[in-house]
Amino acid sequence: MPTINRYVDISEVERESKKDYIDRHSPFVICDSTAKKGEKFKVKVRVGQEYAHPDDFDHYIAYIQLWDGERLLAQTTFTPGTLGNEKSQAEVDFYIIPTKKLKLTAMSYCTKHGLWESTPVEVEVTE
Amino acid sequence: MPTINRYVDISEVERESKKDYIDRHSPFVICDSTAKKGEKFKVKVRVGQEYAHPDDFDHYIAYIQLWDGERLLAQTTFTPGTLGNEKSQAEVDFYIIPTKKLKLTAMSYCTKHGLWESTPVEVEVTE
Amino acid sequence: MPTINRYVDISEVERESKKDYIDRHSPFVICDSTAKKGEKFKVKVRVGQEYAHPDDFDHYIAYIQLWDGERLLAQTTFTPGTLGNEKSQAEVDFYIIPTKKLKLTAMSYCTKHGLWESTPVEVEVTE
Amino acid sequence: MPTINRYVDISEVERESKKDYIDRHSPFVICDSTAKKGEKFKVKVRVGQEYAHPDDFDHYIAYIQLWDGERLLAQTTFTPGTLGNEKSQAEVDFYIIPTKKLKLTAMSYCTKHGLWESTPVEVEVTE
Repeated sequence: MPTINRYVDISEVERESKKDYIDRHSPFVICDSTAKKGEKFKVKVRVGQEYAHPDDFDHYIAYIQLWDGERLLAQTTFTPGTLGNEKSQAEVDFYIIPTKKLKLTAMSYCTKHGLWESTPVEVEVTE
Repeated sequence: MPTINRYVDISEVERESKKDYIDRHSPFVICDSTAKKGEKFKVKVRVGQEYAHPDDFDHYIAYIQLWDGERLLAQTTFTPGTLGNEKSQAEVDFYIIPTKKLKLTAMSYCTKHGLWESTPVEVEVTE
Repeated sequence: MPTINRYVDISEVERESKKDYIDRHSPFVICDSTAKKGEKFKVKVRVGQEYAHPDDFDHYIAYIQLWDGERLLAQTTFTPGTLGNEKSQAEVDFYIIPTKKLKLTAMSYCTKHGLWESTPVEVEVTE
Repeated sequence: MPTINRYVDISEVERESKKDYIDRHSPFVICDSTAKKGEKFKVKVRVGQEYAHPDDFDHYIAYIQLWDGERLLAQTTFTPGTLGNEKSQAEVDFYIIPTKKLKLTAMSYCTKHGLWESTPVEVEVTE
């Protein structure tokens, strides 16, 4: 309340329109599986993997948050039109400096279809 | 993931430190129970009702969001020190113009103790 | 770059459409002229004084910031539709705890007409 | 008010501490000089080129905005500690889809030293 919509493996979803709906709203955390302690580490978040989302004035991805466990690392807020009003995938690369093992989750918000959460991604941090 | 902590009635909590912990992190939605369609309507959100939260640089309320059902209405982001580094209650008044019945929920984020959600508040909207 | 548009006294502007354009985009800081050190102090920011601004999906006030001199106190980000898609004045009440004399300025951003700055407001802070 | 601090060529600055002060606060827009209309285009913003900035709780880069002329494209807000409390350069990659010639400017905000603006970068957009 808001509902947190969670990604489900779309290969197990039968209906094409449902695959599309789920995939185009789900944020994906894309990064290496290990990081060096104290060194800058890139974490890409992209909303949608196989499908694309509108960037209409009344229907767009308004923000992406990156969390490490219970801790918010950063939030990017978009203005409609940033993606040229094209169907596309909202995307941002964050840079963080880890000090210990990460459990990264992304949240993204669609102005028509609410709040969505990624599958968490664990990153080992080595000295 | 992040966990959404939810308010529980502190009169039913026994331990004083737990009452304090729950109350000082919980956002409360404070507004009239009815609104006029098409007219400006004030919605206060305050974090904490009986207890106060630190405003330290490494421990503060970093944002408050106001939701109507699945729809984000507004988000206020704070800088540490806005509350003079005093123990206090983060607070903001939003102004919205409702078109139909509201189901308002606030979310707030503490940089040490994560994400908290208010009890939802329903507002009837009359012509 | 972005240009910072500044409020000018509209009583000295002749053309009605220009008065409207300037007033409906300008943020106004509204608060008491003195505050008590260490006590919560309310600061209203409203965009427009005599005129109103659209809340259309492709043309709305997207954020309001409150500054004390060079220091950002808080930022409220709006979603289009928060004001029911009516012509109205975006508005938010911030609560701060001052420790010394304030020089408050508000900035607001219109998705079509850019960044606007209020006249600064000085607030004496007494023990 | 806030002052907009602007980058000046540090090779023309004599005092080492001043070079450091200017460089570590200035956002730099880093991207290709031409983009394809309707295709995704990466724009990196990094705060500092030769020098690094603290990521302390009471002194950090709190946000980076990317503007195209008078239009805000996106804003990333950071939490202190995202860069592991190390001296480093706040950094984010935005992805936009251009429809016409771009004039990109970044703004960044340091919680102790205010608002800074990059040199604008023009990008030709070809069919």
